[in-house]
Amino acid sequence: MGEDIDDEVVTVLSTEECWAALRADEFGRLAYALGDEVGLVPVNYAVDDAGRDGPTLLFRTAEGSKLLGVLLHPQVVFEIDRYDEHEASSVIVRGRARRLEEDEAHRAEQLPLRPWVPTLKYDVVEIVPEQLSGRRFVLERPWLHARLDA
Amino acid sequence: MGEDIDDEVVTVLSTEECWAALRADEFGRLAYALGDEVGLVPVNYAVDDAGRDGPTLLFRTAEGSKLLGVLLHPQVVFEIDRYDEHEASSVIVRGRARRLEEDEAHRAEQLPLRPWVPTLKYDVVEIVPEQLSGRRFVLERPWLHARLDA
Repeated sequence: MGEDIDDEVVTVLSTEECWAALRADEFGRLAYALGDEVGLVPVNYAVDDAGRDGPTLLFRTAEGSKLLGVLLHPQVVFEIDRYDEHEASSVIVRGRARRLEEDEAHRAEQLPLRPWVPTLKYDVVEIVPEQLSGRRFVLERPWLHARLDA
Repeated sequence: MGEDIDDEVVTVLSTEECWAALRADEFGRLAYALGDEVGLVPVNYAVDDAGRDGPTLLFRTAEGSKLLGVLLHPQVVFEIDRYDEHEASSVIVRGRARRLEEDEAHRAEQLPLRPWVPTLKYDVVEIVPEQLSGRRFVLERPWLHARLDA
């Protein structure tokens, strides 16, 4: 159904560009399924290169938090984006969430991770990417016409 | 499990503050269930006051786009956030998505809506809020210590 789309205004990012964007940012949003509901939370994250199978994403969450529900249905989607007046870009990571075991949790200690809710004890969740996609868009501003017409 | 949380660093936003934040922004992210999968997309949106039951959120999507799958399972979650060095805030809207009928779609024409993918024909989707929640956080930067230790 995309035959109307002007390819000149949408650029597909390469895997390298997606990782560069993920490394340059520190806040994203995590969407997950929890029973019949969808959950969506902002998280502070960092890219970690200490895993054996390539880079992953790590974030901290308060010990015992509701967010650990992701472990029951670990297929998650993570998103970052940025935009200015002229263009917008977003990167979407599909992957599996797992909690780091105690002997791995030290991996988070060398990363710039700040949880949104401070607490004394944290669990560290890792998102192992299975699919990356990124797009960059030239933004039009059709409402300028709408406003002039109003 | 939240007994460790320092209430001084987390502020719960009032409904009015949530709406003020929603009106001040124009980009958010929509999470939805599509079969067994969770979808997550950035969207440009606007608050619309033309509905009968209070303000709603509108966004445009290319006619026939995959995003219209939300109509099959219309319980969605929408999120906005912003942050700087010192604090972060987010607003989460839980609600129901519906496609505006042709005789209502004109409501989008007076709003500052720009779709991320330009196309000749759009559908307009409305999110009717059922639950708003917003939080503001003071951000700590524990990794400054981690980096000094590293």
